[in-house]
Formats: sequence, structure tokens, C-alpha cells
Amino acid sequence: MIKVSIIGAASYAGGELIRLLLAHKDVEIVHLTGNTYAGQDICAVFPYLQGGIRHEIIALTEENRAQIIAGSDLLFLIMPHGQASGMAKAIWDAGKKAIDIGADFRFADAGVYEQWYKVKHQSPELLPEAVYGLPELYRKQIAGARLVGNPGCYPTASILGAYPLLREGLIRDNSVIIDAKSGVSGAGRTPSSGNIYAAATQNMKAYGVAGHRHTPEIERILSDISGKPQVINFTPHLTPMARGIHSTIYADLRRSVSGQELTELYKNVYAGEPFVRVHDHGCWPESKWSSGSNLCHIAVTADKRTGRVIVCSTIDNLLKGAAGQAVQNMNLMCGFAENTALPLTPVYP
Amino acid sequence: MIKVSIIGAASYAGGELIRLLLAHKDVEIVHLTGNTYAGQDICAVFPYLQGGIRHEIIALTEENRAQIIAGSDLLFLIMPHGQASGMAKAIWDAGKKAIDIGADFRFADAGVYEQWYKVKHQSPELLPEAVYGLPELYRKQIAGARLVGNPGCYPTASILGAYPLLREGLIRDNSVIIDAKSGVSGAGRTPSSGNIYAAATQNMKAYGVAGHRHTPEIERILSDISGKPQVINFTPHLTPMARGIHSTIYADLRRSVSGQELTELYKNVYAGEPFVRVHDHGCWPESKWSSGSNLCHIAVTADKRTGRVIVCSTIDNLLKGAAGQAVQNMNLMCGFAENTALPLTPVYP
Amino acid sequence: MIKVSIIGAASYAGGELIRLLLAHKDVEIVHLTGNTYAGQDICAVFPYLQGGIRHEIIALTEENRAQIIAGSDLLFLIMPHGQASGMAKAIWDAGKKAIDIGADFRFADAGVYEQWYKVKHQSPELLPEAVYGLPELYRKQIAGARLVGNPGCYPTASILGAYPLLREGLIRDNSVIIDAKSGVSGAGRTPSSGNIYAAATQNMKAYGVAGHRHTPEIERILSDISGKPQVINFTPHLTPMARGIHSTIYADLRRSVSGQELTELYKNVYAGEPFVRVHDHGCWPESKWSSGSNLCHIAVTADKRTGRVIVCSTIDNLLKGAAGQAVQNMNLMCGFAENTALPLTPVYP
Amino acid sequence: MIKVSIIGAASYAGGELIRLLLAHKDVEIVHLTGNTYAGQDICAVFPYLQGGIRHEIIALTEENRAQIIAGSDLLFLIMPHGQASGMAKAIWDAGKKAIDIGADFRFADAGVYEQWYKVKHQSPELLPEAVYGLPELYRKQIAGARLVGNPGCYPTASILGAYPLLREGLIRDNSVIIDAKSGVSGAGRTPSSGNIYAAATQNMKAYGVAGHRHTPEIERILSDISGKPQVINFTPHLTPMARGIHSTIYADLRRSVSGQELTELYKNVYAGEPFVRVHDHGCWPESKWSSGSNLCHIAVTADKRTGRVIVCSTIDNLLKGAAGQAVQNMNLMCGFAENTALPLTPVYP
Repeated sequence: MIKVSIIGAASYAGGELIRLLLAHKDVEIVHLTGNTYAGQDICAVFPYLQGGIRHEIIALTEENRAQIIAGSDLLFLIMPHGQASGMAKAIWDAGKKAIDIGADFRFADAGVYEQWYKVKHQSPELLPEAVYGLPELYRKQIAGARLVGNPGCYPTASILGAYPLLREGLIRDNSVIIDAKSGVSGAGRTPSSGNIYAAATQNMKAYGVAGHRHTPEIERILSDISGKPQVINFTPHLTPMARGIHSTIYADLRRSVSGQELTELYKNVYAGEPFVRVHDHGCWPESKWSSGSNLCHIAVTADKRTGRVIVCSTIDNLLKGAAGQAVQNMNLMCGFAENTALPLTPVYP
Repeated sequence: MIKVSIIGAASYAGGELIRLLLAHKDVEIVHLTGNTYAGQDICAVFPYLQGGIRHEIIALTEENRAQIIAGSDLLFLIMPHGQASGMAKAIWDAGKKAIDIGADFRFADAGVYEQWYKVKHQSPELLPEAVYGLPELYRKQIAGARLVGNPGCYPTASILGAYPLLREGLIRDNSVIIDAKSGVSGAGRTPSSGNIYAAATQNMKAYGVAGHRHTPEIERILSDISGKPQVINFTPHLTPMARGIHSTIYADLRRSVSGQELTELYKNVYAGEPFVRVHDHGCWPESKWSSGSNLCHIAVTADKRTGRVIVCSTIDNLLKGAAGQAVQNMNLMCGFAENTALPLTPVYP
Repeated sequence: MIKVSIIGAASYAGGELIRLLLAHKDVEIVHLTGNTYAGQDICAVFPYLQGGIRHEIIALTEENRAQIIAGSDLLFLIMPHGQASGMAKAIWDAGKKAIDIGADFRFADAGVYEQWYKVKHQSPELLPEAVYGLPELYRKQIAGARLVGNPGCYPTASILGAYPLLREGLIRDNSVIIDAKSGVSGAGRTPSSGNIYAAATQNMKAYGVAGHRHTPEIERILSDISGKPQVINFTPHLTPMARGIHSTIYADLRRSVSGQELTELYKNVYAGEPFVRVHDHGCWPESKWSSGSNLCHIAVTADKRTGRVIVCSTIDNLLKGAAGQAVQNMNLMCGFAENTALPLTPVYP
Repeated sequence: MIKVSIIGAASYAGGELIRLLLAHKDVEIVHLTGNTYAGQDICAVFPYLQGGIRHEIIALTEENRAQIIAGSDLLFLIMPHGQASGMAKAIWDAGKKAIDIGADFRFADAGVYEQWYKVKHQSPELLPEAVYGLPELYRKQIAGARLVGNPGCYPTASILGAYPLLREGLIRDNSVIIDAKSGVSGAGRTPSSGNIYAAATQNMKAYGVAGHRHTPEIERILSDISGKPQVINFTPHLTPMARGIHSTIYADLRRSVSGQELTELYKNVYAGEPFVRVHDHGCWPESKWSSGSNLCHIAVTADKRTGRVIVCSTIDNLLKGAAGQAVQNMNLMCGFAENTALPLTPVYP
């Protein structure tokens, strides 16, 4: 039984972490922090929890930081960019474990991080210690890590979708184009003119075109897989659904290969993976197939007319794209069975 | 470990049953039946199950009926009205258990059933053996039953909302008005001009006004609680959401009572109930608070200006309104812990 | 050709006013005001207008108020409660016309207004001059008015639904219960934790139970129709759709009358009304039938078992419930054909 | 005043045609046909029309075909693929005008049509007479035509988005990738397991990957613009909204050009176009900006890191993508002002 705390619990990812951890037999929640709701019970934020958990939200301060860390074995960080890197340093120095659900530990190079995120990294010296928390690629390293940078939601779906192509050297360098669609919860719980219901419903729009911050994160890992630098196009779209990501990936094939062959390749690459499902050729995954579960669904084909490969990959942005993957990483880091407390079946429809 | 079968598995309630039963440690699924999909794997209906379960759907026929029953300890029936009453007879005679998710065993009087459902009941002699499967009112009887009529989704939310008022004799006879709103999955998986996306989204409409078949079911139980016949108004509305029921209940108070006092009463009545949450006065439940969970959320107030009580009650129509309540009944009938495999936390947002 | 200004143009009602007025051959828009967007073009708020209109939004100040009024023949007021009553006084004194889309001129009694709205009325002396802008009931008075209080969205649907019953004395006093459902645009454009997409989609909840401020507005008019005071229950519900209101009305009948007879009565009462459609008995209106149009759709029945009448009434909250009705009132006040620039056909689906 | 008929009126495109034509001062509707609803009034299909139009739907038969054509000046065809080509022949021979809203007259080559649509073309000899009804490219030819093939919804958004790039020779051959997202009404009014609300809401999925029939239609026109054959990738996605198309277009630039320069180019190309709006660099269009209007909104940028251009283009699939464009074509063919009865302002939000 380990003690965990959630820094930034009054968020959608925090809410899903609480749901998953309440069902995790090896975990006790000790602290929930949050500035806006400090002093209130977590049920004031998520009233559906009434009767299921009573837990005060506390503010994270200079004064209580050491104490919160001391009382925890592992901390989940859901903090503004640039703040998690400071918190993580204190956790590291205290010999505890941290999983950062933000972007502070997703890059090897602090310079790239600071260029795209426009904030200063507070502990660049920890970057070599941090592991990119995508178990399908870095399972062993995660198991031995004390600091994990939990991948972004778009990168999770996109990297899992592209990985076999790059690993096998099937596609031309710099030919990857990722057209991704996300539900609105990806933008968080803070109200804005863009995420209010009347503006977002029955609507589809691109944003961050040619400049979204998940671009260098995806490029880092695709480069790592292929062994040489890769630049990509990544275009996210706001989609009228509460949760879910659908990533459509295009790339130029180096040689002729059929959709059936590609499907076989994908099935082999992901054989044994508990949270990746490769579907038969011609069966295209739906974002809702992952709703509430930790699964990534993938299908692939080739277009002989154009010589391109097309991959579709879907996840729940709050599960495999955030809280679910964080629990998967925690399970690996703590020696629990990797699938503990992680739903395989979506809540459908 | 008991063996269960689902008759009519290729339905939304069937899908949710499969999700819940896959996580139930005391249950093994032995047969899934369905006419439309007979011969295909259940993954052809719910492709998200691929990799999680492989199970052929078989047609239910005169020939294999006895064998299916013989191989099962308990059967869930999701069948057209009038057919379950025949199937249940065969199950009863074989000494097995049945939970009918349809309406065939929700009435004490076959005449009322036949008048509202316009089909003949095939085993009226079993009606005295059948228990109305609402554990909060009939827990003991369910635990001893071999045949349970699982309540309708609207009746579950509405009866739980009105029960304390009638039990305590607080309201005038025949003064109950129920204005209920349901998500579209309540209409099932069969495509129709009314449930296609473009027709149902961004839309609200009443249906079955002054004639919906859940009316006599609610009246039967409210009459049972109050000890005298009750007629009510019940108006369902199709609401643009996949799942969820919100029931708003109005009644004339016999005497002046405050919203605070009513809230206390409700909290007392439902103290200890694992799947009912009464919220503080002024905190109105949302249908989504139950999404994917087996909980019923309730709040109540009184309007001094008009002398009426107003109750709001929400459930997930596929969980507490169908598959979840069925599993809760199974747990009671089979001596398992009542809350086994039943989610308490919704998938939110 | 009259000159009109919109005070508070950067609102959803303002946006719909602009859409309607751009197609109105007798109207020229002279001023658009708004504090948040002052100095920007209206296309910064509604980018879809680019190429269709260019018009700077100006702040409304003490300094420019007289000038704005002097340059306008008629002003539409979309202002916070309590502020319109001050603005309207200045317009009145300048001899110009005003249509207040807020609540400041919906009451005969400033005391009732101040009790429910918790702000001071700045020009109670104008209340006797103001006409309640529901043309189906007060067409003549509107045509002769210089100051109109545009009805609330819920009251418009609810009063039109109940009017024939009260006019004909068919129902018992104080027996009206209105259960209303509204799309999220009714809450305006200001972001909040309650109207963000992820919170509002796939969800249904009641609010303002036994205390919503449209209650006394409806009661005022129902009392006016029936000639004696009426108290009612009114419960609004937030519904996952951008626009639309569905109002379900219950009342106790004084005498036995069939649904068919009631339908005939309604058809007679509303014969010749350009924006009310009474549907055949058994055909229940859908909120989307009014989407983008100025129509109110109504159907009615009687429940012989309980002795109650049930009415369903639908409108578009931004058209007949706000901007459309305001233009209808303007047409009457200015001697234009009543239906000028008002769409009859919804944008469906 | 011309007489028009709609063959296949009980469709979503038919409903929108009726809405637009009812507001068109130069047009009289003479016949509405439909097999499913033959003998019923159009109000049985679209009850919101009650009080606005009464018009019987008749079956189209061998017997009455000549008479329907004789009584009409122009016919809109909304028919299954392969049937319009027969009907159009009869219309042509009678010397009347036809606008086919299906695919039968979108191709120069009957072989390509038959290969992708798997039905026989009944009047290939008419293909040289048919004009592709995209006014922004073929205005003059449309004005002189008696037979117009109204473009598909995806092709309209995609071709308008790509046109300036190809006209100016800015992109590499065969480098166009179109990732398009459509609302569910694009699939029509016929209920199916894929378009029911519970399946389609809160969900995103690709379909027709590497094989959708709009691919050759787009290729035909892009080839026509560029003067040489172009093959493309086109991937449509079903998006949870009733209407709207968002097309995201990628292509490889031949030379370095800035987003600002591309925006200027687009503004020049579409200057004076009544139904195309090019937005400032950095302002990305939303599908809802076109909802209920005939406008196409476009924005463009270049990604210097990858050397690609990205274009986003949005329309309402039922307006500029079907009924609106059909009316625009009718206006041109009949010498009416091109923008008659075509809304410029969307119904927003």
C-alpha cells in the first residue's frame, strides 16, 4: 500500500485519477491540492463523489510543500507549465517518486521546451533522469524511474499510431502529417469563450496550426524511434465531444506494401500489449471505443494510388492520454501489475 | 462461480451487462444470444471488445433453448415484450434463475400488462412468484427470488425520488406529476427516423404524453408504498444525450414542511443504501453524475408559495436503469456482496 | 428607413438581432455598443460577419449616451438588470423608442421586480408607460408604445402555451406547473463553470428550483389573463443544446374536456397569428422545429385518468424568446408589416 | 416567375431547398416527389412547415414523369445514383433545365463514374452537355447550361480551399492530402446503425479511407485547374454535429512563401465572390460560421519547417454543399441575381 498525492486535483485529469485510484487496492490517497478550491472538500468540485470519498483540498504552499512530499510515496503533478519542474526537484531531493502530467519532463532538451512553452525550466539537471512515460516504448526505463514525464494526449495517440512505421523504416523522412481531433475536455476545466457549450457544440475548428506545442514532443520520439531527426506537420482540431482523440496519420511509403501486410505488422508489434488493440484491415476505430477505458485502438491501410500509408488511432484523452497512462506508469514504477485498476471496456454508447 | 447467459446480448443493455460481468469475479458468461448477429462474434457488434473477449452470438431457437437454460445458473432476458414471459417459464421449470430486463414481470396483474403492452402474457401463473427488482424497496424478497422483473429506467428514477414522500404520507393522493427526461439510448439500438443523430441532436420533445407504458408500472409501486391506489401523470421527453435520466417530480404537500426537513427525511430513508445519494438542500443533481455508475442522485425542496414538493432524481438509464440494477439483483439473488462489480464513480465529464 | 442601435451588441441576442436587421429593408444599424469589445469591429466578436458588415463597437459612456440616443430612432437594450431602467429613461425623455430585452420593464410593480432581481429600478415612473411585448396578447398596446419590455424566453413559451386555458377559464386557480427545458445559449456568452462544453454536454439538470426569476413574470401575465392572482410552479432545466426551449405545462381541468376539443380551442385562439402554430392532436412539437425561426409550436391534450391538461410549447430562445420577438415588436411600434425580416422556416436539422 | 419541381423532396437537401425556395420571389414550387411519403403532405415529413406550405408529395412514376417535366421549367434531382441520369435525359429531351444534386453529372468520363459508383450511367451522351456546378470556377458555363451536376459537399469545400494553390502552380503534383470532417446529415435521412444518435454522438471516426467516391470528383477538378492529372488522398470523418464540413488540406510547396503572402493571394483570387470569405492570417474558420448560410470560409498558412501549405475551409454541407449551391446555380441558369434567397449570415450559435 503506497501513499499518493495529487497536486492539482480539481482538474478533469485529477477527477479521473481519483476515480481510478479509488478502485486501486494498493494505493491510498493522502493529499489533494488545489488553489481555487482550497479549504473545500473535493465533493464541492465533483459532487458525484459525495458519499464515496470525503477529502479536503488544501493549497500547496512554500510552507507545507515539504510536509506533503514527506507524507507521500508518489505524487501526480497537474500544474501550470514551468511549476512542475520546481516541484519535481523537491520531490526528487526527498527521494520520492513523481509523475508529471504536464509537459515539463517530456523533453530531453530544456532549450526546445523553453522555446515552445515560453517559460523557464526550473530543473534542467533532472531531464536526464526523467523517462518519457509511454510504456509501449519505454517500459523498462519507466519501471526503474523515479521521475516520469507523462506524455501529452495527442502525442500518445499519434506516436502509438506511427511507431511501427518508423521502427521498420517503412516511410520517408519528414513525410509524416498528423491530423488530430480532440474532445473539449482536452482544454481543461477553466471557462473561456472558446470552450463554452454554445460555442463548441456542433462545431469543428483547427487551432495551433503549424505551431502547436505537441509538435516537438512527437518529433522527439519519432526521431528517437527512427534514429534521425524528423520534422512533421501536426494539426489539432477541436471536436464537439467531451472526451476522445482521433488521430489520422499520413506518410509516404518507401516501398509498395499492402494494407493487409501493414495490419499484420502492427498486430505483431503490439502483440501482448495490454492497452493497444490493432483492428482487422478495413475496420476503422472510433474515438468512443476508448471512452472511459485505457485502450488505444489502431487501424492502418495503404493507398496504392498515392503511395501513402494512412493510420487511424483513438484514445480517451483523459485516460490513456492523461490519468490512465499515469496510473499505468505508477503501476510500473511501483511494481504493481501493469493493468491494475485500469478499465479495458469503454462506457458505450 | 456461477454461469450466466444473456438472451439478447446485441443490445445496449447487453453491452453494459457484458462490461460489468467481465469485471465480476464470481460470474462466467456462458451464452450470448441474438438473432440479427447469430453466428458472429460479439466483437462484430461491439468492436471495442476485440482482444477483451471472444464469444460467439448464437440464435435462440426452440431446439437449443433447453440446452442454453441447462448450461446456465442465471439468465438475463432482453427480449421483446411478451416473449420473455415464455422464456421465463422454461427457466422457472428448469429450476434456474431469471432476471427479465423487459416489462413482462413488472406487474402483479396480467390484465394491466396486456392492456398497456398490447401483447398476451405467456405465463401469468408466474406473476405471483416474480419480485419487482428495486432493491431499495424489496431487497429481502429479491434475495429469496428465482424470478425478478427488473424495473424500467424511468420507474427506477421516479419511484426512488417519490418513495419517502409516500412512505411518510406527506403528499395528497393522486397529486404526483412526473416530468422525466431521458437520453436516446433508452430507445434501443434499432435505427428509426426518431433516433437518428440529425433528428435527435440539439432537440427536445415529449412523447407518449398521457399514455406511456411506464405509467402503470410507477402507479403500481407508488400504490404499494402508500397502501392505496395512486394515479399519476408521467411525461417522458427525449433529450439529446446518449444516456442518463433526469426525473422531476411534483406533488401537493399535505402540511407545511421545509426543504431542509425534507432533505433530512430523505437522508434518513436512504441512509446505508449503497447506490442512492441524497444531496444537501439546494444542490441539484445532474444526470451526468451517474454516467457509467450505478448511483441514483436525489435532491428535494418545498415551495412554500404553492405548497408543493419538488424532487429531482437522476440515474444512468443503462446502469441503475437496466444492466447495473440487474447485476445488483443478481448479486442479491446469488448471495454475492450487493455492490460487486458495480461502479460508484461516474465517467465524468 | 429608421435608425436603430443595439446597446450590448456582443451578446448572442445581439448577434441574432444583427442577423435579422441586416435583412430588414426598413432599418439601418447606426450604433453597436459593448464594453468588453469597445474599439473593435463587430467582426472580432462574430467573425462570420466578415465581408457582410463592418461596424465598430463603441463603449457606452456618460459622455456619448445622449449622442447615441439622438442619432437613433429606436434602441434595443441588452444590459445588466437595473441598468436598462436608467438608459430607458434617457431614451424616453429624448422622445425615442426603446425595446428592453432584459427584465427591467416586464413588471407593473417595481417592488416585485426589486424583490426577485435584487437591484433597484431606476425609473419606476416609466413602468405604467411600458408595454409587455408579447404581440399575441398585447398587439394593440405595443403598436402604440414607445417603451416595450421584451418578454423572457421561458415566459414567452409558457404564456403562449397556457393562455387559451386561462382565457377560457378551463383550469383551477394556482394549479399550473411549468416544467421547462432550455438550451445553453439562454445563459449568455459569459464563460462559467456551468456553461462550459464538457460540463453541459450529455447532461440535464434543474436550476433555480422554486425560485427562478421568470416565475413572477409568468404569474403577472397569467393573472392578467385570468383576472385574478395566480401562483405557479416553474422549474427550468439546462438541456444539452445550443438553443431552443421546450415548455411542458400541467394544470387541473375544471371540467371534462377531450384533447381533441382542446386542440380545436387552441387552433381557434391562435388562428391568424403569424408566429404561432397549433399542431394536430397527438403531434407533439420539437424544440428544433423553431431553430432559427420566430415560430412558437404548440400541442395540447387532456388526461382523463387524472383530470389534467398537458401542453407542450417550443420556441427558439434567441428568436421568439429574444431577438425575433424584439424585431416583431419593433415592426409593430414602427408601422412595418409585423412579419418583416422574421424567418418562418427553421434551419433543420 | 419560374416553375420548379423537387424530385426526392423528403430528404434533408429537399427540406433545405424548400426553405430557400419559399423565400425566393421568382420561383414557384409545382411538384414535390418522393416514394416513401407519396400521398402525404410535405408537412408529414417536415411538420415545422405546417401553416407555411401545404403541398402533396407524389410518387414519380413512368406514367406521370412526362407530365411532371412538362409542368416544370427546372427540376432539382435528389435521386439514387444511376437514376438521375435517366431522369435527366427525359428533362433534356423536353427542353427543360435540371440540376442534379447527386453524382451522375459530376464526371466527364462515364467510365470513371461507373468504376467508383458501381452503377451504369443511363445517358453518357449528355456528359459533354453537363456543367460542373461550382460557380466560383465555372460561372459562365453554368449560366449557359441546361444541365448542371451540383458538386458534392466534400468536393465543394476542398476544391475551393485548394483552387488558388493549383491555379498559381504553387504546389507539387500529387502532393495534396485532404482530411475532411462532416456532420452526420451528410449521410442522409435513412436510419442506419451508424447514424443513430447514441452511436454518432461524442464520437469521431474515419470512413471510406483510401476509397471514398468523392476522391475522383476532386481529382477531376484539381486536374482541370492545374492542367495535368492529379491524384490525391482524401479521408472523410464522421463528426458529431448535424451539419457542417471542415476540410483541412495539406500540400508540398514548390517554393518558400509566407502565410501572409498566401492569404493575400487567396483574398485576391476570391475578391468579389459573393459566397467565399478569406480570413486574415491566423484566424481559422469554424464549421459553424457557415451553419444555415451559403458561405465558404477559408484560411491558409505555410509551415516553414516542413515546406507545406495548410488550408482550412468550412461550409454547411446542406447549403453551399447541396441545396444552397443548387439555388445559386439555378439563379445563374435562369438569369436571376446570383445571391437571391441565399443567406449570408449563419444561425449562430
